[in-house]
Amino acid sequence: MKVIHSPLKLKNFLELQKKKGVRIGFVPTMGYLHKGHLSLVRKAKKENKIVVVSIFVNPLQFGPKEDFSRYPRNFARDSALLKKEKVDVIFKPSAKDLYPDDFQTAVSITRLSRPLCGRTRPTHFGGVCTVVLKLLNCVMPDVMYLGQKDYQQFRVVQQMVKDLHFPVKVAMAPIIREKDGLAMSSRNVYLSKTERHEAAFLNQALREGKKQVSAGQRNVSKIKSAMRRVLNRTSQGRLEYLEIVNADTLEPVVKLTNRSRVLMALAVTFGKTRLIDNLLVRTH
Amino acid sequence: MKVIHSPLKLKNFLELQKKKGVRIGFVPTMGYLHKGHLSLVRKAKKENKIVVVSIFVNPLQFGPKEDFSRYPRNFARDSALLKKEKVDVIFKPSAKDLYPDDFQTAVSITRLSRPLCGRTRPTHFGGVCTVVLKLLNCVMPDVMYLGQKDYQQFRVVQQMVKDLHFPVKVAMAPIIREKDGLAMSSRNVYLSKTERHEAAFLNQALREGKKQVSAGQRNVSKIKSAMRRVLNRTSQGRLEYLEIVNADTLEPVVKLTNRSRVLMALAVTFGKTRLIDNLLVRTH
Repeated sequence: MKVIHSPLKLKNFLELQKKKGVRIGFVPTMGYLHKGHLSLVRKAKKENKIVVVSIFVNPLQFGPKEDFSRYPRNFARDSALLKKEKVDVIFKPSAKDLYPDDFQTAVSITRLSRPLCGRTRPTHFGGVCTVVLKLLNCVMPDVMYLGQKDYQQFRVVQQMVKDLHFPVKVAMAPIIREKDGLAMSSRNVYLSKTERHEAAFLNQALREGKKQVSAGQRNVSKIKSAMRRVLNRTSQGRLEYLEIVNADTLEPVVKLTNRSRVLMALAVTFGKTRLIDNLLVRTH
Repeated sequence: MKVIHSPLKLKNFLELQKKKGVRIGFVPTMGYLHKGHLSLVRKAKKENKIVVVSIFVNPLQFGPKEDFSRYPRNFARDSALLKKEKVDVIFKPSAKDLYPDDFQTAVSITRLSRPLCGRTRPTHFGGVCTVVLKLLNCVMPDVMYLGQKDYQQFRVVQQMVKDLHFPVKVAMAPIIREKDGLAMSSRNVYLSKTERHEAAFLNQALREGKKQVSAGQRNVSKIKSAMRRVLNRTSQGRLEYLEIVNADTLEPVVKLTNRSRVLMALAVTFGKTRLIDNLLVRTH
């Protein structure tokens, strides 16, 4: 397994591989890897000859009051995990490599950035678009793998790639959960014991929403009320949003119709720790 | 010579060529071609096996009160000129191909977009960045050719390509001028006879600036005064800006030092017609 820091060296190495006609899979991460990341890596490994994993905590996608500086980092552990998965290249650029002093380009997306997480994180998805496009140009993969955990991010990146005609397939892999249903996240380490216990309610609320739909409920505000009742059981969590939206446009849905494909999504804050989770639901 | 409208068809055709290891040169234009464009095409032809010229009047780079709808168009003439130059592919997408209803990505650049033309055209360079990045992803050329006439555009695009690690070389070709020095521009057809006559003062002012520097003048405000005296001879022209800036950063320069590389740039409006011109000057 190679660890490459310089964008130029990465390009040079991968260009040689591409000339051999080798298929490249790419998993962008911010490190502090968990089973969710590793499931993306395994999928990439299965479908491509070469797998590149980037590890970069991207300052652009954190707001001024967010957890950029305390975001958990552990390269030794990440590196050992990726070696075990037989990853070919770790790309670990420095902030100076990606954002030198004269750096001044911004990539952003309008409609898909605004709802859900965009409401409290107005600059987040612009930061994501910018770094992902940079990474894509460095790696030039055949397929990029993103987790459903950050579904809005997946839609934003998928739309950007389409809008800019970027030659890559954007694949999504399912959320990996702890035994009690909590979605895996690098931020889960922040949680106190009580918070960790109550964090399971996020997924339980989503499952309650799905149960309502399966039972025939089509009225979105009634479904959301049932979900909110589950969330009300947390003593520490503060609900930031709970939404049921069109899975493509992320626009609010008032009533489910037959063959709807909707996203149930929520964000809950425990102290300074912000957790998100979601579920894709289809009606038949 | 092929004329291709669909981005997907263009990609498919060029991918075949790239597999053969063929070098691709790209000249993006808004059509209504003149000798300036053709000099770019010839340079591209000399340096590459395949030359792609795009013709697209990009609505994104026009402000709401600008000349998008009346911008001159003549595809039959353009196409005949490019055939004579043995261009391989004209890429002529429709606005719907490039900006479908769900399109929502924006690429922009901060510092380099603000001075000079950016002051009166605040959304212009964002529109340029967005369309150029789209075109680059469609064509994936080895080299892209831009004219010095739009020097700020050249710098903006060059910086965007660097910031995003886009694998293309951005080459600049000199301004082509009429006999009296007027820089060739598709917008010159708008000019009345008097305006056309007076438009030659733009280049004369730039030459006066260069003369001042050659004579040893290093005080920028004195150089600009001398240039303004030339421009004052126009009865119809309205000076929008006259600047002497660092050729890399486009930031104002107060005093020329030895080995300065500066851009003298100006914009003058005749009626509704806005003309620009520039000159790169080095001190020794």
